Amino acid sequence: MTAYALLVEYDGAGLVGWQRQSNGLSVQEAIETAATSLNGGATPLATAAGRTDAGVHAEGQVVHLDLAADLPPARLRAALDFHLRPQRIAIRAACLAPEGWSPRFSAARRHYRFRILNRPAKPALEEGRVWHVPLPLDAAAMHDAAQALLGKHDFSAFRAASCQAEHAIRTLDRLDVTRVGEEVVIHASARSFLHHQIRNLAGTLHMVGLGRRPVSWPRELLEGRDRRRAGQTAPPEGLVFLGVDYDPPLPWVTSDRA
Amino acid sequence: MTAYALLVEYDGAGLVGWQRQSNGLSVQEAIETAATSLNGGATPLATAAGRTDAGVHAEGQVVHLDLAADLPPARLRAALDFHLRPQRIAIRAACLAPEGWSPRFSAARRHYRFRILNRPAKPALEEGRVWHVPLPLDAAAMHDAAQALLGKHDFSAFRAASCQAEHAIRTLDRLDVTRVGEEVVIHASARSFLHHQIRNLAGTLHMVGLGRRPVSWPRELLEGRDRRRAGQTAPPEGLVFLGVDYDPPLPWVTSDRA
Repeated sequence: MTAYALLVEYDGAGLVGWQRQSNGLSVQEAIETAATSLNGGATPLATAAGRTDAGVHAEGQVVHLDLAADLPPARLRAALDFHLRPQRIAIRAACLAPEGWSPRFSAARRHYRFRILNRPAKPALEEGRVWHVPLPLDAAAMHDAAQALLGKHDFSAFRAASCQAEHAIRTLDRLDVTRVGEEVVIHASARSFLHHQIRNLAGTLHMVGLGRRPVSWPRELLEGRDRRRAGQTAPPEGLVFLGVDYDPPLPWVTSDRA
Repeated sequence: MTAYALLVEYDGAGLVGWQRQSNGLSVQEAIETAATSLNGGATPLATAAGRTDAGVHAEGQVVHLDLAADLPPARLRAALDFHLRPQRIAIRAACLAPEGWSPRFSAARRHYRFRILNRPAKPALEEGRVWHVPLPLDAAAMHDAAQALLGKHDFSAFRAASCQAEHAIRTLDRLDVTRVGEEVVIHASARSFLHHQIRNLAGTLHMVGLGRRPVSWPRELLEGRDRRRAGQTAPPEGLVFLGVDYDPPLPWVTSDRA
């Protein structure tokens, strides 16, 4: 057996998320199916750094795959990328997995971006990639509110009811809100996140951006630890899993060109 | 009758381009149909700054529309944007058209962007928005070659056989090639362009980027004025019509909020 790491991009639309489900195609099933012919006909197991929900996109999901074959990483990348051709799933890079490495437990930091299209007109080019908020948002107020959430806290107020984590204590390293033309973009980084944490933070910050809640509100919610008081869960299509930091970094290979 | 200007965004996929065609839905037909109920049931005529081809996108197409109704521009924008809801066509802004103004003939400068995804892996998130070139491109060499094309020239070498312009003399104001991560992005600006001019320039510059032709080649092609010698026509999905400059600028309105 050879253990590989894969760097994976996907469009979450039309997929049921990372994890295998009976109700539709998941990224996990697509990759495992594409790898079957490289694994002597047996379906291998793929595990990921983050179990993205249905509709959530990825630019830099990281996947662990054990194969019976011993292929150079560049050839594995090209073969999987080709076999995944009908899907909007791309294998950007591959490498041999370091001894004892886990995409999930070895992660030092995860990075996400959430995009809000903040203009009266509906999305056309970015439909399915943004949350459309037609009324004007004050991105500076959202950013100020977000800074009060940084650090190590019990994030129960921003946790999905379905969250399976043992506890809700997380350390939020970055939660930046910036306006970029017609968009308000949220960047979030932490070693790990709770289920729906970023989408719940986005829905809560958007209430501050609209001026319906004060800048102090998200911090008060955090301290109250009561999910029922926070803002709505923002829709999945605005969220992109940007990537994962490992220490040391993985030795990614994209092609076998010299 | 009231004359309006509209600022229009669209996803070119699945549309036959700007102009009405018998073989599918055009942006022109979609807008004219959406405006019919605001025009006493008669189909109005919409004319555009640029007749984009099938598959080409727009962030800032500018359209002229004469209506029997006398609506405030913000209400017209909202109504048309709503009626266009099934399509990936958005009305970003509207205003009253100045006396004697034409979206096409009054244009002082048009701006386009062409995106190349330059990596081994196929596009996933940007599929339909980029030209995929898997082999490495030298963006700096492409940029150098492009600078030799700036200014007023006969662009016959980069003109489509179907081009209906009276002559091929155009003044190219900007043709920048920059690398942005995995992408090579071309920005082109001119008062007007010939049919397929930017896509032919992109296809030609990409041969320089691959190292298959010298940096001097595009200028030699320009001087030879022979379309058959230039590079391929790059695919439409990489091209976006960014916007048009008018002098004075149009007084765009996006909403009726104070």
